[in-house]
Amino acid sequence: MEAGTPLSSLCTPALVLDVEKVKKNALKMIERCESMGVTLRPHMKTHKTLECADIMTGGSRRCIVVSTLAEASFFAQHGYDDILYAYNLPFDKVERCAALSEKLDLFQVLLDHPDALQLLKKRPLKEGRLWHVWLKLDCGNGRAGILHSEPEALELAQAIAEAPGVELTGVYAHCGNTYHCKGVEQIQAVARETTNFTLHFMEKLKNLGISCKSSIGSTPSCSHPVKEMEQLSEVHPGNYAFYDVQQSLIGSCALEDVAVRVLTRVIGHCPHRNQLLIDCGWTGLSLDGAGKLPTGYAVIEGHPNLKLLSMTQEHGRVEPITGKLDYSKFPLGTLLSLIPYHSCATAMMHPVYHVTSEGRVVGKWAPTRGW
Amino acid sequence: MEAGTPLSSLCTPALVLDVEKVKKNALKMIERCESMGVTLRPHMKTHKTLECADIMTGGSRRCIVVSTLAEASFFAQHGYDDILYAYNLPFDKVERCAALSEKLDLFQVLLDHPDALQLLKKRPLKEGRLWHVWLKLDCGNGRAGILHSEPEALELAQAIAEAPGVELTGVYAHCGNTYHCKGVEQIQAVARETTNFTLHFMEKLKNLGISCKSSIGSTPSCSHPVKEMEQLSEVHPGNYAFYDVQQSLIGSCALEDVAVRVLTRVIGHCPHRNQLLIDCGWTGLSLDGAGKLPTGYAVIEGHPNLKLLSMTQEHGRVEPITGKLDYSKFPLGTLLSLIPYHSCATAMMHPVYHVTSEGRVVGKWAPTRGW
Repeated sequence: MEAGTPLSSLCTPALVLDVEKVKKNALKMIERCESMGVTLRPHMKTHKTLECADIMTGGSRRCIVVSTLAEASFFAQHGYDDILYAYNLPFDKVERCAALSEKLDLFQVLLDHPDALQLLKKRPLKEGRLWHVWLKLDCGNGRAGILHSEPEALELAQAIAEAPGVELTGVYAHCGNTYHCKGVEQIQAVARETTNFTLHFMEKLKNLGISCKSSIGSTPSCSHPVKEMEQLSEVHPGNYAFYDVQQSLIGSCALEDVAVRVLTRVIGHCPHRNQLLIDCGWTGLSLDGAGKLPTGYAVIEGHPNLKLLSMTQEHGRVEPITGKLDYSKFPLGTLLSLIPYHSCATAMMHPVYHVTSEGRVVGKWAPTRGW
Repeated sequence: MEAGTPLSSLCTPALVLDVEKVKKNALKMIERCESMGVTLRPHMKTHKTLECADIMTGGSRRCIVVSTLAEASFFAQHGYDDILYAYNLPFDKVERCAALSEKLDLFQVLLDHPDALQLLKKRPLKEGRLWHVWLKLDCGNGRAGILHSEPEALELAQAIAEAPGVELTGVYAHCGNTYHCKGVEQIQAVARETTNFTLHFMEKLKNLGISCKSSIGSTPSCSHPVKEMEQLSEVHPGNYAFYDVQQSLIGSCALEDVAVRVLTRVIGHCPHRNQLLIDCGWTGLSLDGAGKLPTGYAVIEGHPNLKLLSMTQEHGRVEPITGKLDYSKFPLGTLLSLIPYHSCATAMMHPVYHVTSEGRVVGKWAPTRGW
């Protein structure tokens, strides 16, 4: 790490991470999973950097989950192994998946449809290697996955288990429906339901003589796990390393746990509209969170009466929630700090993250991009 | 250009550009400006690539406008000159602006506040070079700029013109309020108003013995210019090289003029929800356009009854507007083509653009990013 420089040395907009908070959030999750006796397979999708992956894996560089094949390749190139590409097997990327399966000790794919299994069977791996396949279950989230309650789910699990050259490695459910929760009680109700559906499915598999791993995940559920989750093999949260305003509203964390900020500067005074302009548009923050907060698209740290009303490509319009702006308090060049609504979306907009410790800039992390 | 490969060879999601349409859109704008006798200063913010800049400048590599200093530096490094950084002078980037001013023949900055002028005066350029400064006017757009009708606007113009080491290069107004228009008549009313306000301001400057350039711009106004615009020195549209669904709804172009698509594939069937999943989430399209189209976040080419209902990071949910999905028509792996609502926002999400000609992939363009 280079010698620290002040935050004011950064050109804005700039994504800054408090590395102490990242480490604290990551360590808490590691300890929580250890105490549950469940393997933590952290998700890389929020940050997509080696440095944060090292923190989240406790330096093991093993046992991660990714949302894109670009992430899988990036981490594999940098010595990571035991990678789960937890995304419906894309028909255009089978060869790239095969290459990773043949290169790594443990590259794992996911599917929810018999046609995807057929594709894998048509492309046997070299040297008798097995395709490591997770079955994606929909336990109420309503996105990808075969419905846990449908007979087809069990049939597909059985077909994977029995297919030559293929291994049923696990059953995977993402409880993204925890994002509709408010408070620990609601989060835990969803976590319990997802876990119970998954464990019930594992029972049915066991009755067919099939055993494999089980994994559920989401940052809310893994921030407030229920007892039943101790029976799972793994959990796979991701956003928790950064957290964000959304997670604090759901109840996953406190606002002070959020490790990510977008620094921005005042670049305009608009007294005829009672507004400020800042140099953060949607290229610096994303449009995620529209209409969700009384303070607009973000929380403006230390200024509870300010609202980020709207953004265009490189401009943000800020106005007071009540009263008249006192422009003498916001001269041009004033640094403001935005706490993002959704850190996954905000991080995606930045080619580099500036890492801070005790309020000084101490390094840079560069995420991978693309698919 | 390499030999063309089929579109189906692309991994998805992929941003693809029809280079013939880009060239046609660019040439039309060049010809339109020539016939008006007005200099075209194309905006680079939508694409941020050398290749598209070469097309938009007709190969001159001169006379462009950018939205970030990263773009300015990128184009300057690649032999571009006469660059206008049309963004309220950011107080953290004065040194970088000075370096470009001292390196290029003609690097131009913009401001709308006396404090920004003070900053420039405090940092005289080397070798007696002048800061080339545009004054940003707000002629009704309601974002950056000093209100054209306020006496302070004229005072600031005069202060710039009289400041040592500084030259008043021009007066600049962005008529982004054309984005609220529907149809040519409304577009032209805004274009006329912005032009007249600007020309009236130029008259007042002339009465003070001050002369400089004038420029207005936006893709809608420059796609349907009014006679009055012939009296301007320059116009500065940008989005027109790609266009998008939004521009077709405003009336700037026809839907068939839109040069950009996001290719995506079907990755899931969800018959219990009457939905498809596609491999394009907001990382591939952006969240721009929410609630604007009956077909959701994009137009799905060739499928007017399909709606892109919602997106998460890497997933899109597609459903029919009416009736039941016939899944046999959309097997897993089916390629779909999304016409983006806002090409500036969609292009921002992609580290590379795939260039097509006559339906074959013939190259790649890599945009610059950051600030």
